[in-house]
This record gives sequence, structure tokens and C-alpha cells, in this order.
Amino acid sequence: MITAIAGGVGGSRMLRALASVLPAERITAVVNTGDDIVLHGLHVSPDVDTVVYTLGGAANPGTGWGRVGETWEAMGELRALSAGRLAWFNLGDRDLGTHLYRTSRLAEGAALSEVTAEIARRWGVGVTVLPMSDDRVETRVTLAGGREIGFQEYFVGLRHEVGVESVRFAGVEAARPAPGVLDALGGSELVVVCPSNPVVSIAPVLAVPGVGDTVARRRERVVAVSPIVAGAALKGPADRLLSELGHEVSVAGVARMWAPWVGTLVVDVADADLAAEVESAGVRCVVTPTVMSGPAESVALARAVLDAGGLSWS
Amino acid sequence: MITAIAGGVGGSRMLRALASVLPAERITAVVNTGDDIVLHGLHVSPDVDTVVYTLGGAANPGTGWGRVGETWEAMGELRALSAGRLAWFNLGDRDLGTHLYRTSRLAEGAALSEVTAEIARRWGVGVTVLPMSDDRVETRVTLAGGREIGFQEYFVGLRHEVGVESVRFAGVEAARPAPGVLDALGGSELVVVCPSNPVVSIAPVLAVPGVGDTVARRRERVVAVSPIVAGAALKGPADRLLSELGHEVSVAGVARMWAPWVGTLVVDVADADLAAEVESAGVRCVVTPTVMSGPAESVALARAVLDAGGLSWS
Repeated sequence: MITAIAGGVGGSRMLRALASVLPAERITAVVNTGDDIVLHGLHVSPDVDTVVYTLGGAANPGTGWGRVGETWEAMGELRALSAGRLAWFNLGDRDLGTHLYRTSRLAEGAALSEVTAEIARRWGVGVTVLPMSDDRVETRVTLAGGREIGFQEYFVGLRHEVGVESVRFAGVEAARPAPGVLDALGGSELVVVCPSNPVVSIAPVLAVPGVGDTVARRRERVVAVSPIVAGAALKGPADRLLSELGHEVSVAGVARMWAPWVGTLVVDVADADLAAEVESAGVRCVVTPTVMSGPAESVALARAVLDAGGLSWS
Repeated sequence: MITAIAGGVGGSRMLRALASVLPAERITAVVNTGDDIVLHGLHVSPDVDTVVYTLGGAANPGTGWGRVGETWEAMGELRALSAGRLAWFNLGDRDLGTHLYRTSRLAEGAALSEVTAEIARRWGVGVTVLPMSDDRVETRVTLAGGREIGFQEYFVGLRHEVGVESVRFAGVEAARPAPGVLDALGGSELVVVCPSNPVVSIAPVLAVPGVGDTVARRRERVVAVSPIVAGAALKGPADRLLSELGHEVSVAGVARMWAPWVGTLVVDVADADLAAEVESAGVRCVVTPTVMSGPAESVALARAVLDAGGLSWS
């Protein structure tokens, strides 16, 4: 069994690659829910949905998030009614069906992990997809200047084109890992940290009480894929956030940040010259192409990750 | 100025007819919100939406409710995810846009009457559409046997194919009429009671503290159109509910029930033989074709109603 810690787009691509070289039933994903948001009354879990849609073959291959063949009637109405103001977060019609379902089930008293399993079942997802917690954890971003906003307002509303002073995970102290999370992380042959945003996708998962400690104890069985390649994020604001929060934007910076939890860091060939610096942070360094530009590249990366963890694959 | 008390489909057809013979700006609609429901986290106001969509030319002419040219992607997903269980109340994609907007605005602190005005503006509705109250009033139905359920569970979920013991309007004692309601009812030249369900569309409006008294004081200026024609409802469970709650299912029964509030009852030609019985209830009776089977019939009914109230029309 292997367990992967994942955010949205990068995480789901890594998971899909892993599921193409291992039986899906051997894989558990622990997914960030810090960027969940209640929007227009609906509980939206963007990272969980991206993982489920991707593994279920229902994701939009163009964007990496949302549904393939999506329609936008509801959003068009909301845009017309609010002169655009309330339509800042795109919710497709099919995607809305997921949110209606999740919101109803939560109101009925179901836990987020139960609802996630139900949605994954509808898509025939063999990977066990677990939200990091059934409790509400909210990633909050303090902008330069001091104003604090929700993560989605920063990420989607402001397109992460603003300076950030700090990030916190409101409610995380009281949050419990979702059922199965600690067992999966503690009992797997290998823990994979996906190439997701370290600050807002991986850090919230590690911040859930018990999770960080469990991963740290398994450090020698933890293989991470660097989300930073040649000093930049492939996608999103990871590079900018790392820099703003005082980290070096390089695989060496990632290694130093993740050293308490990660025994092996897989870095791209573009960063081969930094392997020694990674190792000097106490993290074993594996150099291989890490950019999942297509299926072949993704599969090769998954194999390299399993190799790094000493697992056999097909 | 005239003010109409309205439920959903019957009310909106009467309002559209009135707006075709009077300037829309002279008409105020006070609309039932007792059948509002929070569904999957969204605040749905079926009667208000039916009135606004109908007056705005956006209603589905086939059903009388919902949007013309509607799509059903979200509902299809919800049906697939819940094996049908949670998809008992149809919410089209475009309609969902309205509910997303309403739910967001209410969460922002806007009153239902404000949101209703905003939605009506988007459709260019000239009639002033007022919910009966900004406070939550919930029509609850006790079934034969004693189980109490929400109105929509009875009406949509069970297709009103069950016996009813009683109906109550939970929260109505504490509800205040929405801003403008009492002024409109108290100050109009004419109050029209639309041919809506007396038990679950008109009664909740009259039950809002102050509304029934205000209408009763204007009794001589109140003209109602009977929702019962030839001993039956044209649509929906009005006949069955009246009978189950101990009322005679006839225009005479309607006259006796509404006598405290209604000075004139407009009945269909099919009920001409009951005119004397209506009058013996102390209610003036006007006999005219009341079935709005097409635009010409609807306009003729609107003119007859205004005639009955002594108003001139164009």
C-alpha cells in the first residue's frame, strides 16, 4: 500500500500516474481541504473534486480542474443577476450537481469523508480518496498591508497577483484527521508527497494534529516530488508564496522546508546541479524528469517515485 | 394602484393578465413564501420565482413554472450521485443561478424583499413583486396518520397524493409583513385575490400578522377569483385540501371561507347556478369565464376583475 498527500491539479496528476503503474486499490490519497469554501450556500471541496474527477476520467483535460463537457448555465444567470460580482468562482452545471449532493449529505449529518467516498464511487475511483479532515480547516491569507482573506478569494478572486504576508489554517488546532488518514500514513510501505503547492496544499495536511508527526516518524519511507523546477512553479503561485514567506525558491529550499518529514526528494533534471545542496539538507536526492507533460512522462515519474521508495511496479 | 395576493402558477397567470390591461407600474403583487424551502443549502422561493419568471417572459410556458429553455445538467449529476433520492425537487441549471444568487445575497444580509426586487429587475418586471414577509414562514402539512412534513415534500415529493389532516404556517406568528406589503394592501384602489390554492397559497399570506386584518378592513375593495371551477381545482390539490380540511369544494364553499376578507367573488360561468349561494354568504358574486386557457381568455378575465372592482382599463 502507498499513501499520497495531495493538493489539486498537481496532486491529481501524480495520483493518476501512480494509479497507472500500481493497482488503484493499493493507493490512498490524503487530500487538502484547507481551500474548501462555502459558496452561495454550497460546500465546495476543490482539491478533493479535482482528484476524484481526474481519477474518474471526468476532469476537463484542458484546465486540469472542473468537469469535461461542462456547461455554464447557472453561472451565466448568476453573472447576469449580480453584474458579475458574485460569479468570481466558476461553478459548472455538472460540477454544481456534486456540490448540491455534498451539501445535502453534510446537512443530513454525513461526514465529509463519507460523502467523498460516495462521490468517488459514482466515478468508479479505485484509489481511496480521503479528505485530510472531516472538520473545517480554512486556509486564510494575510495580504501585504494586513488584510486577511480566504484562500479562494486570494487564489481565484485576486488570481494570486498580490503580495502575501502570511498564511494560516484556521481551525486546524481542533481538527482531527479523517478516519483512515493516520492508519494510511502510518501503515503504508511508502508515503508520496505530490508536487503540489507546499504552502497551501501540503502544509495544511501536515498541520492537522497527528498528521505531521506520523509522517515525520515515517520520514525514511517518504518520497516527495519537488513542485519547484528550475526555480519556478510549473503552475500557480507556489514560487511566489515560498519567496514571500522566506523560503528559497529552489529544490534546495524545498528540501530544507520539508526535511523534517521527507527522506527523499525527487527533483527534475533541470535541477541536477542542486542535488548536493538537497542532500546537505539531510534529504536524499533523486534526479529524473519530473514534468508530467504527457502520459509517458507521468508514468515515468511514477515509476521513478516508486523506485526511489524501493517499490516494484508494473 | 392595485395589489394582488398570489401563489405560484395561478397567481402568476392572473398577474400577467392584469399587467396586460393595466400599466405594470400600477400593480403590486404580494406573493406567498410559505412554500419556500432550503434545498441542498440553497434558498428556493418557488412562488416568487414563478411570478417573476412569468412576468419577465422567462417562464416555461409548458409547465407554468421553471425557466424556458432550461437545461438539467446539475440535476442529472445529483440524480446519479444519490440514485435519485435527492433529486425529488427539480432545479434546472438556469433556475439554480437564481437560487445561488438569492442564497448569496441573503447570506450577505440582504432581505428577501430586496433580493426579490433585484431578481425582478434583471427580468425587467414592472410589477412590484413583494414576498409576503422577509421572515421565515414554513407551511407544514400533517398527513393522515399524524406525520408532519414540509409543504414541498407533500406537494412535490409525494405529488399531493396523500391524505392531509391539517396545515400550519410555522413561524407565522413572529413574521412581519415585508416592507411595502401593508401599504400596498391598505392603500390600493383594489385588492385582487388571485385564483391560487386557498389553503396553501392565499392562507399563508393572510396569516402574516397585520395582513389579514388589513385586507379585511378593505373588504369592499377586495375582488377574488375562485380557484374552484365546477367543484374542482383547475390544477393542483386545492379541491382535495379544501375537502380534507372541512370546506365545501365549490364556489359557495370558497365564498364562505373568504367572506371575512373578500367583498366580491368572481366565479366561472360553470358555477352560475351557485351565485345566489355565494351572495347568501355575504359575498357579491360576478359570473364570467374564469379559465385562463389562452391570452384572450386571460385578458377578458382581468378586465372582468377590474370591472368588478369598478376600475377602468385599457
